[in-house]
Amino acid sequence: MTDTPFTSPVPPAARVALIIGAGDATGGAIAKRFAREGYMACVTRRSADKLQPLVDEITTAGGQARGFASDARKEEDVVALIEQIEREVGPIEVLVFNIGANVPCSILEETARKYFKIWEMACFSGFLNAREVAKRQVQRGRGTILFTGATAGTRGAAGFAAFAGAKHALRALAQSMARELGPRGIHVGHVVVDGAIDTEFIRTQFPERYALKDQDGILNPDHIAENYWYLHQQPRDAWTFELDLRPYMETW
Amino acid sequence: MTDTPFTSPVPPAARVALIIGAGDATGGAIAKRFAREGYMACVTRRSADKLQPLVDEITTAGGQARGFASDARKEEDVVALIEQIEREVGPIEVLVFNIGANVPCSILEETARKYFKIWEMACFSGFLNAREVAKRQVQRGRGTILFTGATAGTRGAAGFAAFAGAKHALRALAQSMARELGPRGIHVGHVVVDGAIDTEFIRTQFPERYALKDQDGILNPDHIAENYWYLHQQPRDAWTFELDLRPYMETW
Amino acid sequence: MTDTPFTSPVPPAARVALIIGAGDATGGAIAKRFAREGYMACVTRRSADKLQPLVDEITTAGGQARGFASDARKEEDVVALIEQIEREVGPIEVLVFNIGANVPCSILEETARKYFKIWEMACFSGFLNAREVAKRQVQRGRGTILFTGATAGTRGAAGFAAFAGAKHALRALAQSMARELGPRGIHVGHVVVDGAIDTEFIRTQFPERYALKDQDGILNPDHIAENYWYLHQQPRDAWTFELDLRPYMETW
Amino acid sequence: MTDTPFTSPVPPAARVALIIGAGDATGGAIAKRFAREGYMACVTRRSADKLQPLVDEITTAGGQARGFASDARKEEDVVALIEQIEREVGPIEVLVFNIGANVPCSILEETARKYFKIWEMACFSGFLNAREVAKRQVQRGRGTILFTGATAGTRGAAGFAAFAGAKHALRALAQSMARELGPRGIHVGHVVVDGAIDTEFIRTQFPERYALKDQDGILNPDHIAENYWYLHQQPRDAWTFELDLRPYMETW
Repeated sequence: MTDTPFTSPVPPAARVALIIGAGDATGGAIAKRFAREGYMACVTRRSADKLQPLVDEITTAGGQARGFASDARKEEDVVALIEQIEREVGPIEVLVFNIGANVPCSILEETARKYFKIWEMACFSGFLNAREVAKRQVQRGRGTILFTGATAGTRGAAGFAAFAGAKHALRALAQSMARELGPRGIHVGHVVVDGAIDTEFIRTQFPERYALKDQDGILNPDHIAENYWYLHQQPRDAWTFELDLRPYMETW
Repeated sequence: MTDTPFTSPVPPAARVALIIGAGDATGGAIAKRFAREGYMACVTRRSADKLQPLVDEITTAGGQARGFASDARKEEDVVALIEQIEREVGPIEVLVFNIGANVPCSILEETARKYFKIWEMACFSGFLNAREVAKRQVQRGRGTILFTGATAGTRGAAGFAAFAGAKHALRALAQSMARELGPRGIHVGHVVVDGAIDTEFIRTQFPERYALKDQDGILNPDHIAENYWYLHQQPRDAWTFELDLRPYMETW
Repeated sequence: MTDTPFTSPVPPAARVALIIGAGDATGGAIAKRFAREGYMACVTRRSADKLQPLVDEITTAGGQARGFASDARKEEDVVALIEQIEREVGPIEVLVFNIGANVPCSILEETARKYFKIWEMACFSGFLNAREVAKRQVQRGRGTILFTGATAGTRGAAGFAAFAGAKHALRALAQSMARELGPRGIHVGHVVVDGAIDTEFIRTQFPERYALKDQDGILNPDHIAENYWYLHQQPRDAWTFELDLRPYMETW
Repeated sequence: MTDTPFTSPVPPAARVALIIGAGDATGGAIAKRFAREGYMACVTRRSADKLQPLVDEITTAGGQARGFASDARKEEDVVALIEQIEREVGPIEVLVFNIGANVPCSILEETARKYFKIWEMACFSGFLNAREVAKRQVQRGRGTILFTGATAGTRGAAGFAAFAGAKHALRALAQSMARELGPRGIHVGHVVVDGAIDTEFIRTQFPERYALKDQDGILNPDHIAENYWYLHQQPRDAWTFELDLRPYMETW
C-alpha cells in the first residue's frame, strides 16, 4: 500500500468516507457524492495511477479527496490502510465496499484459481475492510458500512456459480454484521444493483444494451450513488438494511 | 363515499398524492410529507371525522389537502373515489396504500370472518385502489404506487396466519404490478416496516416497548414517511422495488 | 355438502387421508397413493359426479375410498364435512389441500370478483379445511397437513397478481401453521410445484408443452403424489416443511 | 491423497456413491444408506484412520465400501481422487458433499485465516469436488450431486458471518449448478439441515440440547440420510432442488 502523491493536505479531524474499489463508475460517483457533502473522500484502487483523475475531479470541484493504492485482498494492506486513515485523516464515518468481479463461466470450465479470485475480490476483501472499520466504529458507537450487492447475491444462475457464490457470501456478511452491529450503533446496508450500469465496459462490450441509455434503460452511476448517501443519512430509528435498484424497463 | 366538508378549494390541475388509510401515524405523516412538496394530499379513512385534524394540520401549514371518507374495501366506493379525484382535483401522481390489520390469533381459534376481514382490509383494498389508479397512470406513462408492507409479508409466524397471509398477498400484488407496470413507466414499491411505530396504540398497549422511544427504539412516522418521498423521487433508471425499515436496536 | 351414494362401507376406525380438491391429476394421484398404503381416501370436489370414477378406481384396486361433494369455500360445509368424517369414517391422519386457481390476467383488467374468487378457492378454502382438521389433530398430538403450492407462491409475476397473491397467502398460512403446530406434533408441509403437469388441460391448451412429455418434460401426477406420501412418513425428528418439484429440463 | 489399505476388492463397474466428508454422523449415515442399496460407498476424510470403522461397518453388513484419505480443499487431490475412483472403482453416480465448519465468532474478532478456512472447507471444497464429478456425469447424461446445507445458508446471523458466508456461497453453487446441469440430466440438490444433530459434539458440548433426544428433539443422522437416498431416486420429471429438515419442536 502506498500513499499516492497527489493528495491534498487535510486536517486530521476530517470526517472520512472511505470507498474501497473507487472505479470509474459507481465507486467514483459515490466518492463524489460524499465529497459534495463535505466528507473527505478516501478512495482506493489497486493502482494509484487510476485514482488521480478522480481525486483531481473532486478537489477541482472544491471537495477533499485522497487516493490510496491498496490491495483490498491483503490483510496487512487493509490493516495498515485503515490505521493510517484513522491516524492521519480522521475517523472513518462511512465505509463503502464496491469491488465486483462478474466473470461468467460454465461450472464445467471454471478454474479453481478463478473461482477463488472472484470470491477473494468480491467477498474476502469486503470482510477484511469491514472488520477493520467496524472495530473503530463500535468504539465510537456510530458509523455506516455499505456493500454493493447484485442480483447474483440473491439467486444462483447457470454460468454464474463463482460470482453468485461470492455475492451470496458478501450478502451473508452484510446481514450478519447488520444483526450484530446494529444494536451497537453501526448502520450496515446492502444495495442490490440489478441491471447494466453506464460504464465503458457496457458501452464497448454490450452496445445493444448501452443503446438503451437514451431511454434510461441502464443505471446512471450518480443515481446509484444517491442511494448510498440516502442510506447514510437515515436516522437510527428507521434504518434500511437492503434496497434494490434497477431500470424501470428491466425484466426481473 | 362522501366528500368531507372541510376541504379547501383547489385548481383541478393539482398534482395529487392519494393516501389510502391516512391514520394518525404513518399515513398522516406521508400525507404531510407530500403536501410539503406541493402535492395536493388526498387522504382517506372510513370515517370523515377523523380526517379533519389531518386536513387542518396540512392546510394550516400552508399545504393543500382534501379528506375523503371512503371504504377502501368496496369496489364501487373505490371506483367513484378515483374517478372523482381525477376529475375534480387532478391526476393522481402518487398512490400510497397504507391499511394494516395486525390482529394475532392462534390458527386454532381464528374465525373465518376475521381471517377474511384481515385479508379484505390489508390486501383486497390494496388491489382495488392500485388497479383503479394504475389504469390512469399507464395512460399517462408515469406515476408511483407504494405499498406499506411488514415483516409478516416475508415470513409466516405462529399466531399470525391471517395477517401474514394478507401481507404476503399484498407483497405478491406489489411485485406482480412492479414487473408488469415498470416497463410502462409506473414505479411500484413496497416498504417493509419491521418494528413498533410511535403510535397511540403502542404507547397504551405496549408501554415497555414504547419506553424505548428515548433510545430511538421505535420508528418515528415522519422518518418512515421520508422513505416514501424518497422512492417517489428516484429517477426511472434506478428504481427501488423494496426497502426495509427498522430501529437500529431491533432483533431480526 | 352431500355424501355421494357410491361409497363403500368402512369401519369407523379407519385411518383417513382427506384430499380436498381431488381432481383428475394431482389430487387423484395423491388419493390413490395413500389408499395403496391402507388409508381410507376421503376425496372431495364441488360436484359429486366427477368423484365417482376416482372412488371406483381405488375400490376396484382393493383400496378404500369415499367421495364427498363439498364446497371447500363454505365454512358450514367444511365444518360439517370434517365433523362427519371424524364421526363416521375415522380420525383424519392426513389432510391434503390441493385446490388451485391459476387464471392469469393483466392487473389492469383484473376484476374484483375474479381476484376474490381466486383467493377464496386457492387460499381461504385451505384455511377453513386446515383449521378444522388441525383442531382435531392437536387433541391427538399427531397428524399431517400438506398444501400444494406453486412458484407463484414465492414470486410475483406480470399477469399473475391474483394467483400469486393467493398462493403467497397459502404459503404464509402453511408456514405460520408449521411454526405454531409443529411443537404440538402436527407436521405441516408445503410442496412447490414448478412446471406443467400431465393433465388434460395442458394437453389441449398447451400442446407444444405437452409434447415434452416424451422427454419427461412435464410432471407426472403419480410422481408428485409420491412426495406427499414421503413427507407424511418422515419421522418427527427430521421433518421437511417445504420442497420444490420441477422437470429436469425446466428453466427457473 | 492416499488410498487406504483397508478397502475390499470391487469390480470396476460398480455404481459409486462418493461421500466427501464422511464423518461419524451424517456423512457416515449417508454412506451406509447408499451401500444398503447396492452402491459402492466411496468415503473420504482427511485422515484415513478415522474412515476404517465406517468401511468395516459397511462391509461387515454385507455392503461395499472404500475409504480414501483426501484433502477436499486441494485441487490436485480432488482431481486425482475422482480420476482414480472413476478408473478403478466405477462411475460416480452420486456425489454427496457433506463438509461443514460451523465455528461462530463475533465479526470484530474474526481472523482472516479462520474466515478463509471456513469458506475453503465448507464451500471451495464443494466446488472442486462437484466440478470434477459433474464433468464426468454430463458425459453420461445422468448423475446426482447433493450438498448438505444449513439455515445459515439462507440467513445471516450475529456471530455467524464466516459460516453464513460459506453456506450462502455453497447454496449459490448448488443453485447455479442445478440451473445449468439439470437440463443436461444431472440432479443437483441442496438439503437445509436446521437443528442439532445427534453427534458426539452435541452430546458433550450442548448436553441440555442433547437431552431433547428422548423427545426426538435432535436430528437422527439415519433419518437425514434417508432424504439423500430419496432425492437420488426421484424420477427426472419431478426433481427437488431443495428441502429443509428440522425436529418438530424446533423454533424457526
